[in-house]
Amino acid sequence: MARHTYRCPLRWSDMDAYGHVNNVTYLVYLEEARVSLFERMDLASPLETGVVVARHEIDYKRPLVYRSEPISVDIWVEDVSRRSWTFGHRIHDDAGVVYAVASTVMVAWDIAGQGSRDLSEAERTQLLTLTDEPG
Amino acid sequence: MARHTYRCPLRWSDMDAYGHVNNVTYLVYLEEARVSLFERMDLASPLETGVVVARHEIDYKRPLVYRSEPISVDIWVEDVSRRSWTFGHRIHDDAGVVYAVASTVMVAWDIAGQGSRDLSEAERTQLLTLTDEPG
Amino acid sequence: MARHTYRCPLRWSDMDAYGHVNNVTYLVYLEEARVSLFERMDLASPLETGVVVARHEIDYKRPLVYRSEPISVDIWVEDVSRRSWTFGHRIHDDAGVVYAVASTVMVAWDIAGQGSRDLSEAERTQLLTLTDEPG
Amino acid sequence: MARHTYRCPLRWSDMDAYGHVNNVTYLVYLEEARVSLFERMDLASPLETGVVVARHEIDYKRPLVYRSEPISVDIWVEDVSRRSWTFGHRIHDDAGVVYAVASTVMVAWDIAGQGSRDLSEAERTQLLTLTDEPG
Repeated sequence: MARHTYRCPLRWSDMDAYGHVNNVTYLVYLEEARVSLFERMDLASPLETGVVVARHEIDYKRPLVYRSEPISVDIWVEDVSRRSWTFGHRIHDDAGVVYAVASTVMVAWDIAGQGSRDLSEAERTQLLTLTDEPG
Repeated sequence: MARHTYRCPLRWSDMDAYGHVNNVTYLVYLEEARVSLFERMDLASPLETGVVVARHEIDYKRPLVYRSEPISVDIWVEDVSRRSWTFGHRIHDDAGVVYAVASTVMVAWDIAGQGSRDLSEAERTQLLTLTDEPG
Repeated sequence: MARHTYRCPLRWSDMDAYGHVNNVTYLVYLEEARVSLFERMDLASPLETGVVVARHEIDYKRPLVYRSEPISVDIWVEDVSRRSWTFGHRIHDDAGVVYAVASTVMVAWDIAGQGSRDLSEAERTQLLTLTDEPG
Repeated sequence: MARHTYRCPLRWSDMDAYGHVNNVTYLVYLEEARVSLFERMDLASPLETGVVVARHEIDYKRPLVYRSEPISVDIWVEDVSRRSWTFGHRIHDDAGVVYAVASTVMVAWDIAGQGSRDLSEAERTQLLTLTDEPG
């Protein structure tokens, strides 16, 4: 699996008083894409063994209005370090219109010790299979 | 007014299944700080004349757990351009513990024309009064 | 169409700090089911011609935990009056486990006049086709 | 303490695409009022010893628009049974305008056994001090 595309359903309530999907809600879509990816990865779930979000960068390209068809959230791995990695994301529709691009830095977390930890070899290997950015 | 500090009340439901304030919700706190600032500015509200969020960068420093006392969201102006400006933010408690730092690029928006527009002189002047980063 | 079943995707963030879908979020699922129904109805959308929520009753039957498969939200019409009607709802999974039952009173709304209005004949006729409760 | 009034801050994002506070969000205000009440009660917190929401009834009286001043959420106890009790709520502003009234049935919960439990005498005593409906 070189990358993952999550088909993300919108909710009517994702829109704010301006009648557009609120900028904050795009981050919920990124979260849903990560959750979807973790579920598919052939690995004890990082969600269970511990991972935290350390940083987001997001550029908004176009306003998005509620519609019943899902939007696509591409997710891939931009970089892997000893204790962290970076997800790239692109939110787009089927016509290729891009609504946002984003990067998220994730840190492997030791839940018991409440601090960062090294990525396991299995985690690193899995993440490296996701390093192909969509063309 | 050299900068603005918004005392942001948390909600119990800001926490996710990990028992911490969800990373996405921090962006809601930034939004509340902007709304609070716009209300105080001596200026026809940019909220009404048009402004959109173009970009966020946020670094998470510490997990945050619900408590009944508000947290503080400092907001100041990092940079002003012809059609956009950048807000700096720091989320912290009264003891000086920092939970996140963030930058948000805002673009002046022409609602009728659905495109960016130049900042008015009054807007620019107001924004320039907010360029003192908290020490 | 005698009734409508909306397949409602959950979001991981629907869970609260107790690790269950928050009770408030069930109401979002009801909203999504209504929106889905309005989109399918052969009628100028009540969403556009005006409708407001006047009352909810909801009984929670079981805790619900995030999973990637949607849950089902049955929606039907319990009663139609001159200016309002009542939706019945049942939230359940494919195994027949029921998580909540609810009733929602909707009022036809005159957006210009900011008051209730009579249902049109077309609206009434459409609503009456939805009066079969699921068995 | 005969009853409790929670001063509930609104958030701009509480509004939906109609420009009003979304009907679902009122239930968040009820939750905040309960949390605030539990924090003030002279009792090991039911939030920690276990309590779940079993039912809501809510009647919407008027649309509510974001403003920077908090709204008031009155909360009192309508009824106490062996394993459950009912909260009454009234959401209003300082001018006495009522936006919603609601009742919520809470069930004492045995977290370990995952079932309902009897209220303790201390819990019952505390709840009975809250049975004065606001006039």
